[in-house]
Amino acid sequence: MIDIFTLTAKELVQKIKDGKLTSVEVCKTYIQKINKFEKNIKAWVYFDKKILLEKAAQSDDRRRLGKPLGLLHGVPVAIKDIVGTADMPTKCGTKIKIGKLLSKNAKIINLLVSAGAIIMGKTATAELAYFSPPATTNPHDYTRTPGGSSSGSAAAVASYMAPLSIGSQTGGSIIRPASYCGVVGYKPTYGLISRNGVLKTSDKLDHIGVFGRFVDDVALLAKVLIKKDLNDPATVDYSTENILVETKKSFLNKPKFIFYKTDFWKLIDDKSKESFEYFIESFKKNIEVSDVPSYFKDIHIYHRIIHETDLANNFKIYYKKYRTKLSKYMQIAIKNGINHPAKEYSKAIDFMRKSHEFHKRVFKSYDSVISPSSAGVAPVGLKSTGTPEFNRVWSYLGTPCISLPLLKGEKNLPLGVQLVADRYEDHRLLRVTKWLEKECTK
Amino acid sequence: MIDIFTLTAKELVQKIKDGKLTSVEVCKTYIQKINKFEKNIKAWVYFDKKILLEKAAQSDDRRRLGKPLGLLHGVPVAIKDIVGTADMPTKCGTKIKIGKLLSKNAKIINLLVSAGAIIMGKTATAELAYFSPPATTNPHDYTRTPGGSSSGSAAAVASYMAPLSIGSQTGGSIIRPASYCGVVGYKPTYGLISRNGVLKTSDKLDHIGVFGRFVDDVALLAKVLIKKDLNDPATVDYSTENILVETKKSFLNKPKFIFYKTDFWKLIDDKSKESFEYFIESFKKNIEVSDVPSYFKDIHIYHRIIHETDLANNFKIYYKKYRTKLSKYMQIAIKNGINHPAKEYSKAIDFMRKSHEFHKRVFKSYDSVISPSSAGVAPVGLKSTGTPEFNRVWSYLGTPCISLPLLKGEKNLPLGVQLVADRYEDHRLLRVTKWLEKECTK
Repeated sequence: MIDIFTLTAKELVQKIKDGKLTSVEVCKTYIQKINKFEKNIKAWVYFDKKILLEKAAQSDDRRRLGKPLGLLHGVPVAIKDIVGTADMPTKCGTKIKIGKLLSKNAKIINLLVSAGAIIMGKTATAELAYFSPPATTNPHDYTRTPGGSSSGSAAAVASYMAPLSIGSQTGGSIIRPASYCGVVGYKPTYGLISRNGVLKTSDKLDHIGVFGRFVDDVALLAKVLIKKDLNDPATVDYSTENILVETKKSFLNKPKFIFYKTDFWKLIDDKSKESFEYFIESFKKNIEVSDVPSYFKDIHIYHRIIHETDLANNFKIYYKKYRTKLSKYMQIAIKNGINHPAKEYSKAIDFMRKSHEFHKRVFKSYDSVISPSSAGVAPVGLKSTGTPEFNRVWSYLGTPCISLPLLKGEKNLPLGVQLVADRYEDHRLLRVTKWLEKECTK
Repeated sequence: MIDIFTLTAKELVQKIKDGKLTSVEVCKTYIQKINKFEKNIKAWVYFDKKILLEKAAQSDDRRRLGKPLGLLHGVPVAIKDIVGTADMPTKCGTKIKIGKLLSKNAKIINLLVSAGAIIMGKTATAELAYFSPPATTNPHDYTRTPGGSSSGSAAAVASYMAPLSIGSQTGGSIIRPASYCGVVGYKPTYGLISRNGVLKTSDKLDHIGVFGRFVDDVALLAKVLIKKDLNDPATVDYSTENILVETKKSFLNKPKFIFYKTDFWKLIDDKSKESFEYFIESFKKNIEVSDVPSYFKDIHIYHRIIHETDLANNFKIYYKKYRTKLSKYMQIAIKNGINHPAKEYSKAIDFMRKSHEFHKRVFKSYDSVISPSSAGVAPVGLKSTGTPEFNRVWSYLGTPCISLPLLKGEKNLPLGVQLVADRYEDHRLLRVTKWLEKECTK
């Protein structure tokens, strides 16, 4: 018998193409896990077993009829509930009825479907992809948060309820939940994946990202999703030709990393610190430890100004009409956003471009910036999704980041290692990450 | 005897290289015009005849010694007095002492000098490159404004006091004075010319541009000035390989233009209207007349929000310390800038990117947008530099624009025709402009 959970998405597709597995069998295996875990984990806000199996059967028919099969043929993918879907509701984690805004398929849904993927269902998100958490729990400890805002997408992959999932990050909403849940999370460079048909929270900061259990899986998803889209003017032409190839290449010289020890280090639990320090020690030939550049502090402030202002612009109608249905977190953010002055916003935009140049210099000397993916392991309680201190800078800069589930912190809970490369160097980042994944599983 | 004023810069360089002219002779010819006109036109804020002739003599020595000679060898260039120069003061048209801020050579000065150009002197600018005019008059009628803020640079070229000059545009400060003074003005795509070492008024809107008497001249200047500069993060890599070549190429199919008839049409004097209408009629096979896209109105508002906010950020110290030394125009702009809310600024930035996409579509069907360069001819009086209604949209969008001195308006005063292409299509714009220049001089 084939153990589906040990297979990468690519291997799964190959087995289906070769007739050794059917998509229906794959989906049934995942449904078993959902039947087992969902009552405790609450990762899904929309899931219909019957419809899923029908789609899987159609996918299997496609193969039987000899039609061309895509890169994700027959593989189910879970979708964060801020991504518009024509055949499933999209509620964005809010009590407010958002109406027909997201009732069409987002660009990325069409890309997934074209590649043969099966849209499994919709996963729980923090309120309007911001901060107020859904009911989702952490698969490793139900008393703890899975992180957010892509809570359900990370938890579903971590608990084997889905092989792959789609999330989004504006502050730290991919990398942090990937860290807490012990899965691979990948946020490509800003502008590589279209946000057309996805809830908009901040045009300058919103990124689409992905979760999987292997680096190869997130690379494959990215290959399907990265595409210039005239309906999202932030998107650029970017060749994904090398995204999968590069992950296989070996290094002539061992990669070099830099770790910035920031003030946020003190937020991390002792066990996680120990674990990350041991990790650095093991790779001491590769990792240089450095003081953090002083402007990181400014970036945290600038990120907040842009984020809150844009939340105010995008959600001001909800704020005016249904204020009490919004969480306190959201009300405060919007109120702040309304009051920020343009002169601060202007500085935040100017500095974004300036700091891209600083970082280019960093990435001339190092393959990747490396750090813990989060301020330690998932905190206890479901009233918060944890804090994005280790992620905000990279969301602001638009650099690609990956969280790799390499470490254990307090109570043996997972802690991710975050790798960051320069913008548009996604292929290089994937290659370095693949190298590290291999080194750590030797 | 060679009539220097009929020669393009390229021809001038060739004559000097061939020993048929010396740089000293060229400079003396221009000095004669300065002696004749400067008392009435007041284009210069710094000009030293002796130093200029010394530099010209050094340039001639260079040739005699057989050293390699640049693209602008021996040609004098006038510089707007907001561009930092190590050997000349930079006062930016303000009574406030701006100190050492611009006491080093700007990147573009070094590029000019490397190309063999001779920095002639500094030309009058509106206060801090904004709106309050210098004493400069219009060479065609001393009772009228030359336009601004690059007032001296346009007037100097128009009155044969300089063959070439450097200006800048944030609203309409190249194209408008070029139109009023009857010279060629060219503002390349945003991000092609470094603003390092130049007075900063708005990072998102500031452009360096050039003036000359021929399209070939502004193309040559652009070839020298366009260069990526790490010290101006807005700059991009851009090949100037074809900038000169393209201007020579002919068209297989005749170029197509679109003219948007905006609400600002009513601001134009009758004679200018008639003249532009005759122009359209003459090229009716090439020019399509269209209603203006409705979002142009929003762009005027967004431009103002960005401009005023950035003025407030960049000049707040002057505003705090020396308010009464600032013009009323500047005081109002800064006060507005301090009070704009971030949410409006955010929209202004988001829309910038969105409208780039709209315009890409326009430029798929047309080689160039075409319009009068200004709201008619230069208005009477020196208390205003005229209005940038025909230019603001293109400064906001960062598209390349050229003003070509083709028409006559009221009192036979010059009126420019403005051509606009898509961003990074400067070579195409120059080619179309060159075509039009030829057609009109047949």
